[in-house]
Amino acid sequence: MTRYQHLASLLAERIEQGLYRPGEKLPSVRSLSQEHGVSISTVQQAYQTLEQQQLIVPQPRSGYFVAPRKAQPPVPPMSRPVQRPVEITQWDQVLTMLDARHDKSIIPFGGGSPDVTQPSLKPIWRELSRAIQHNLSEVLNYDELAGRRELREQIARLMLDGGSVVTANDLVLTSGCHSALSLALLSVCQPGDIVAVESPCYYGTMQMLRGLGLKTIEIPTDPETGISIEALELALDQWPIKGVILVPNCNNPLGFIMPDARKRAALCLAQRHDIVIFEDDIYGELATEYPRPRTIHSWDIDGRVMLCSSFTKTIAPGLRIGWIAPGRYYDRLLQMKYAASGTNVPSTQLAACNFIREGHYHRHVRRMRQIYQRNMEIYTCWLREFFPCGICVTRPKGGFMLWVELPEQVDMVCVAKQLCRLKIQVAPGSLFSASGKYRNCLRINCALPPTDKHKEVMVQLGMALKVAMEWEAE
Amino acid sequence: MTRYQHLASLLAERIEQGLYRPGEKLPSVRSLSQEHGVSISTVQQAYQTLEQQQLIVPQPRSGYFVAPRKAQPPVPPMSRPVQRPVEITQWDQVLTMLDARHDKSIIPFGGGSPDVTQPSLKPIWRELSRAIQHNLSEVLNYDELAGRRELREQIARLMLDGGSVVTANDLVLTSGCHSALSLALLSVCQPGDIVAVESPCYYGTMQMLRGLGLKTIEIPTDPETGISIEALELALDQWPIKGVILVPNCNNPLGFIMPDARKRAALCLAQRHDIVIFEDDIYGELATEYPRPRTIHSWDIDGRVMLCSSFTKTIAPGLRIGWIAPGRYYDRLLQMKYAASGTNVPSTQLAACNFIREGHYHRHVRRMRQIYQRNMEIYTCWLREFFPCGICVTRPKGGFMLWVELPEQVDMVCVAKQLCRLKIQVAPGSLFSASGKYRNCLRINCALPPTDKHKEVMVQLGMALKVAMEWEAE
Repeated sequence: MTRYQHLASLLAERIEQGLYRPGEKLPSVRSLSQEHGVSISTVQQAYQTLEQQQLIVPQPRSGYFVAPRKAQPPVPPMSRPVQRPVEITQWDQVLTMLDARHDKSIIPFGGGSPDVTQPSLKPIWRELSRAIQHNLSEVLNYDELAGRRELREQIARLMLDGGSVVTANDLVLTSGCHSALSLALLSVCQPGDIVAVESPCYYGTMQMLRGLGLKTIEIPTDPETGISIEALELALDQWPIKGVILVPNCNNPLGFIMPDARKRAALCLAQRHDIVIFEDDIYGELATEYPRPRTIHSWDIDGRVMLCSSFTKTIAPGLRIGWIAPGRYYDRLLQMKYAASGTNVPSTQLAACNFIREGHYHRHVRRMRQIYQRNMEIYTCWLREFFPCGICVTRPKGGFMLWVELPEQVDMVCVAKQLCRLKIQVAPGSLFSASGKYRNCLRINCALPPTDKHKEVMVQLGMALKVAMEWEAE
Repeated sequence: MTRYQHLASLLAERIEQGLYRPGEKLPSVRSLSQEHGVSISTVQQAYQTLEQQQLIVPQPRSGYFVAPRKAQPPVPPMSRPVQRPVEITQWDQVLTMLDARHDKSIIPFGGGSPDVTQPSLKPIWRELSRAIQHNLSEVLNYDELAGRRELREQIARLMLDGGSVVTANDLVLTSGCHSALSLALLSVCQPGDIVAVESPCYYGTMQMLRGLGLKTIEIPTDPETGISIEALELALDQWPIKGVILVPNCNNPLGFIMPDARKRAALCLAQRHDIVIFEDDIYGELATEYPRPRTIHSWDIDGRVMLCSSFTKTIAPGLRIGWIAPGRYYDRLLQMKYAASGTNVPSTQLAACNFIREGHYHRHVRRMRQIYQRNMEIYTCWLREFFPCGICVTRPKGGFMLWVELPEQVDMVCVAKQLCRLKIQVAPGSLFSASGKYRNCLRINCALPPTDKHKEVMVQLGMALKVAMEWEAE
């Protein structure tokens, strides 16, 4: 974090805590510069940042004032999906979105790519080059089936931060978290089986279930505390459910972190009904809170939690490195890995291993956590300013996704099609449901830096939504 | 090919054609040197090579003579597996073999790794480094779901050599041929379905079927002409078979190339019974004959042949690049790719693309074809010399595998365990059958260069086999 960012966040904190009240004048640039021992221009930059976030307003010739407190948009209510197993559809829409990933003229607010342009990621280049230069035969030969041992050791160490105690022998590396989850499902389920999910649920997971011939039952989920334990229990009583997929830390798309008590309650429930928990921790390292939140896996005593994660969001998607701690299903999972996907690319594993070992990983993740948090704050301001009234917006505890609920009459699928023509891609909420819910919602990827260009896109998006609302009202 | 290799192969050809008869004296070193305009030492090296292959014998003070013609070991007869669907076992043995891949003290005659030490492979390093240096954002971001278009275009061009006319749009890149085949199976089959295979059948394919919950029926296969069309027809009449996996070009482990007429007969049969052909062409580019043999896919008119291949044997396993031309199953396959494995690593795709584009691929494959062919000839000589009498050995038309049938009383599973202690790994034939056949067979990977060290291993192997035979006889 640079000096001005540090100062800005300090001031933002003070405003939040009420040390400076709405409408109050803030200290002068000169006095802050003396107080914190930083240059005038650093203070000015800090104030500009806060202004962008609409926390303060400049008054010509008299300095900066705390902005009058606008109400934060409310958080969406608990979801209410259909309470029975359904087949998943909408593959075509997802495919269209995946294809758009490679059209450079499209602004991909609908995708899930992290920001890979930050300088703290630079060392990964060096490590990739070094892997190729210094490990000739390893890079060209077959990898170990479970993945490179050195990297598994590094990952086991990282997992301690989430409370999971595992060794390299308990881990299997995969080609991303997506592949980890699919191998987990293939190891435990047969086509036709039912798997419970949070609702809304990441469309990639949804389409994976569909591809593997599984049915899903969507469970009501609260945008601040996660899946409803009560609703899950009801569903377990009623249907022969094989397992539940949970994203308890920095949920995608809702951004919540399940409180520890609820995590344990979910685990107890799984034990009582003898089902598997597929825990997706891909965003867990990007939690704003420090130390990072615990995994459900960390309380697991009988190996029923299969913890899946990857470096896709924390380093880069192109490495294609994920992992799974498959617990009691280790043997079956290794066999499924051999059957369904084979071994992984050695070069990117070597690079990731050194990237962690040399301390670059922690530095980078620390930095990205703050950047994403800040981005989400700025995007939230823009939503408040440019979007129609009556929206609800999540307050993510990490990751980089915002989930927006619009007034009911808005059909985001239609709006998304119109935006396509403007080369703006958004993810309509309906992709996150198998039962056709959330057509009035959308997910926004805040890893895209809040530049003027992206601000302009938010303006366009807001206008499109307003038009859609008026159109519906007529 | 160096000069002496060229001269050696010329002389070998003349001996084969009978221009020099067994027992006849060969031209002197000096006269050959003059005839071919090469140095004395080149001729000497050529003669040494032929001596190693046991084609000629030196007579002190009188020069080289054509070796008395020893009978080539006969080719094994048509296989006779059990003619009913069976469950596959032996995962543990395969796992042991996979694990051994990473113990550098073990000599891996049982594995399937190609030779990645040849100088013609050097440019792949440069291309890997260049990919990382010059394509920053591509390397770190998500790949296209179907794989990089430029590479698909290159592969479509390569496929013309096998007679297959496809465009980039007909191809899906995968993480190796193994993954291509598993996605093909996942797209077409449900757990419990029956898939027919050649017998013996590569253990990786076998274990894949097992992992995916499929049953297999092994079809009698001739080591020179491939799967018995008659036996396949009989099986199709009798059982509800979903498809057949064929390795018609440079079969693994038998090395045959199916004659074109039989390839077409297999396709007709598939059409008549409306089944899928999963064609594995991974060794097809390594055929000794030029131009390379045609694929069954090249005659396919209704999209029922799913052609799978990769650069694993022709460039290097560590790239993890395979592909599939899934014909009429394209949509389903793309969806399965998303569901089961996700996107691939971009950096190795970029490198492979440039490796082909710059002409390195063709140069390298041309060279490797000759090296592997020569290796197999030398290993065959060694088998004849060091192994017990009464063995049968295949005469591969490409690839780098030899399949050896030993007298019936030999139990290769036991011998393999003993050899393990000597740090020698071989693949016992039983791994290539689901029904416990071929315990008296083994597959030898001739990509391991025929050095003195490896010759010594063949001597040890031969001794172990002789001991096993005597032990059984007692």
